[in-house]
Amino acid sequence: MRRMIGIKEVEDIALGAAVLGTGGGGDPYVGKLMAQQAIREHGPVELVTADEMAPEDMSVAIAMMGAPTVMVEKIPGGNECVQAFKAVQSYVGKEIRYIYSIEAGGINSTIPIRLAAQLGLPLLDLDGMGRAFPEIQMVTHNLFGITATPFTMADEKGNSAVLATIDNRWMETFARGIAVNMGATAHIACYAATGAQQQESAIHGTMSLAENIGKAIREARTAHTNPIAAIQQTTGAFVVFHGKLIDVQRRTVAGFAHGSAVLEGIGAHSGTTMNIQFQNENLIAETDGEVIVSVPDLITMVEEDTGEPITTEQLRYGFRVLVLAMPCHPHWRTEQGLKVVGPRYFGYDTDYVPVETRFA
Amino acid sequence: MRRMIGIKEVEDIALGAAVLGTGGGGDPYVGKLMAQQAIREHGPVELVTADEMAPEDMSVAIAMMGAPTVMVEKIPGGNECVQAFKAVQSYVGKEIRYIYSIEAGGINSTIPIRLAAQLGLPLLDLDGMGRAFPEIQMVTHNLFGITATPFTMADEKGNSAVLATIDNRWMETFARGIAVNMGATAHIACYAATGAQQQESAIHGTMSLAENIGKAIREARTAHTNPIAAIQQTTGAFVVFHGKLIDVQRRTVAGFAHGSAVLEGIGAHSGTTMNIQFQNENLIAETDGEVIVSVPDLITMVEEDTGEPITTEQLRYGFRVLVLAMPCHPHWRTEQGLKVVGPRYFGYDTDYVPVETRFA
Repeated sequence: MRRMIGIKEVEDIALGAAVLGTGGGGDPYVGKLMAQQAIREHGPVELVTADEMAPEDMSVAIAMMGAPTVMVEKIPGGNECVQAFKAVQSYVGKEIRYIYSIEAGGINSTIPIRLAAQLGLPLLDLDGMGRAFPEIQMVTHNLFGITATPFTMADEKGNSAVLATIDNRWMETFARGIAVNMGATAHIACYAATGAQQQESAIHGTMSLAENIGKAIREARTAHTNPIAAIQQTTGAFVVFHGKLIDVQRRTVAGFAHGSAVLEGIGAHSGTTMNIQFQNENLIAETDGEVIVSVPDLITMVEEDTGEPITTEQLRYGFRVLVLAMPCHPHWRTEQGLKVVGPRYFGYDTDYVPVETRFA
Repeated sequence: MRRMIGIKEVEDIALGAAVLGTGGGGDPYVGKLMAQQAIREHGPVELVTADEMAPEDMSVAIAMMGAPTVMVEKIPGGNECVQAFKAVQSYVGKEIRYIYSIEAGGINSTIPIRLAAQLGLPLLDLDGMGRAFPEIQMVTHNLFGITATPFTMADEKGNSAVLATIDNRWMETFARGIAVNMGATAHIACYAATGAQQQESAIHGTMSLAENIGKAIREARTAHTNPIAAIQQTTGAFVVFHGKLIDVQRRTVAGFAHGSAVLEGIGAHSGTTMNIQFQNENLIAETDGEVIVSVPDLITMVEEDTGEPITTEQLRYGFRVLVLAMPCHPHWRTEQGLKVVGPRYFGYDTDYVPVETRFA
């Protein structure tokens, strides 16, 4: 199904994608403004599902990589994405006809909308994670053998790089180093994929899902109904904790925002403490030392009254939040998927337990 | 003048280039074997001076970058240079007809010979330093506004990168990071330059000078005359110290071999101590706390009996050496040259004093 994404749709997508962004994926406010500005200048963007692509049609993912803590201070200019796109186009043998989003998140769901508007290309209603993850190889396309090569990078100063690697984990290593040298953030274009590849490997409907989540929150706010319930209805999220932020540790290291947040329980959770650890995205949540949710399932903190998702770089002492947990896409629950994004990859000595087995 | 470089010429070039390499530029033994092997397979290499290039003829520099301490353990395979060359060829608008050496040094003078043999292309009798320096922007071409872009890199695993930067100092930053991630060494192709650009900006005759130095040392050894005197006659070197190595500090950090060597004086230098500090190459020599030679002039340690140059990664306790100092090329003595390679760039709070004003 084809339909148009305009100013209002971007508003909803930015908000809903931040719920799926599990604390990462960049600031929804900045992302929203950039995409809306591009739509005002160039007109709305056509949203297309993968089954409408011809099998040989080519698409490419556009994103920002780096530490969200830096992204909020170093706001993207206008042309880096276009540079990264042009560079990748010069390497891909055929014309790129579609843009897509590598992950759901405040910026990484809206930067592709902006570029699609600027270039007059349609956007695919899918992504490569169904959420946000911190590293380049953590996309479902990788599980299906699709290479991130050619991988192009551009910064706001005019520097650029093109990388070709023997696997997607090596790409993460090289690209991360360059992103750090570009000032901890960079614009990237990568994972060129045909229609046939998208149909097999992508997570479908992510843009529409983000929009539905955002719309549900917005309508609940307008109707003065419960926005958290609206999120639960659209995502199947479990409310796993209610608490007040009493400590945030955060350090920007090797191009990532690493850290942890400590929540003191409120109401039904009084007397318990939750610790959430993150690497750009929230990775694992423990109450009183016991893991209760972990990657690849989604952990998102939302403001208790408004349902506003809180990114890891926005966490502040005193925030009163609900911690939501959502099941990840089945692709991530396979043996191969868990090798790439399971808790052990991130250094946690715990097995993955699907969130619904604990909370359903 | 055109002439051919064969097995014997490579022997002399590798030895003489290591004298000019000021402790860096890679192991002459490994470099020699690689170039000789290529000549055995593909035949000798034509050596051509820049004034024989047509003004629009295109040339490119080929080198290894990284920490020499790692290069001695991670010996180059056969194909990385070819990969780097092919990548740069795909970016340079016109056919590359000549190969050149970016710096004088055991490996970086011989790797271009090997590639020239493999590709059947002539080699230019010049380089970009007249010695070895540790960083990418430290070439005379940079002083004349020639860009290192497009800059290509390849490793032995099959990874590659193409970089385009707004200036050559940024290139150093990006390329160094990638070289570290490639395992502390990488093969590079860069500084594409036309005949007209080479004629204006290169240091001419470096390959022949290296050969003459090597030949003079070899002939002195055969004739049982003084090889140090032979080096002095071919280079104008001053013997600035005679000593025994009593301490070597060395650490491989951020893709460089940093360190220092302490020499206890022998003979005329008894009772004094020399300290030499290096970053891949020897940068500064002090006796009893006073700077007596510094970059951009050349500081090379040679074995006292044989005249064999000693690279910084080969330094060992107990070596008895002569420390030679040689004037650098006049390009480096300009205000602009000293900004790029003078002692203050490397963090030493001292003004440059030409070596001949102290020792002539």
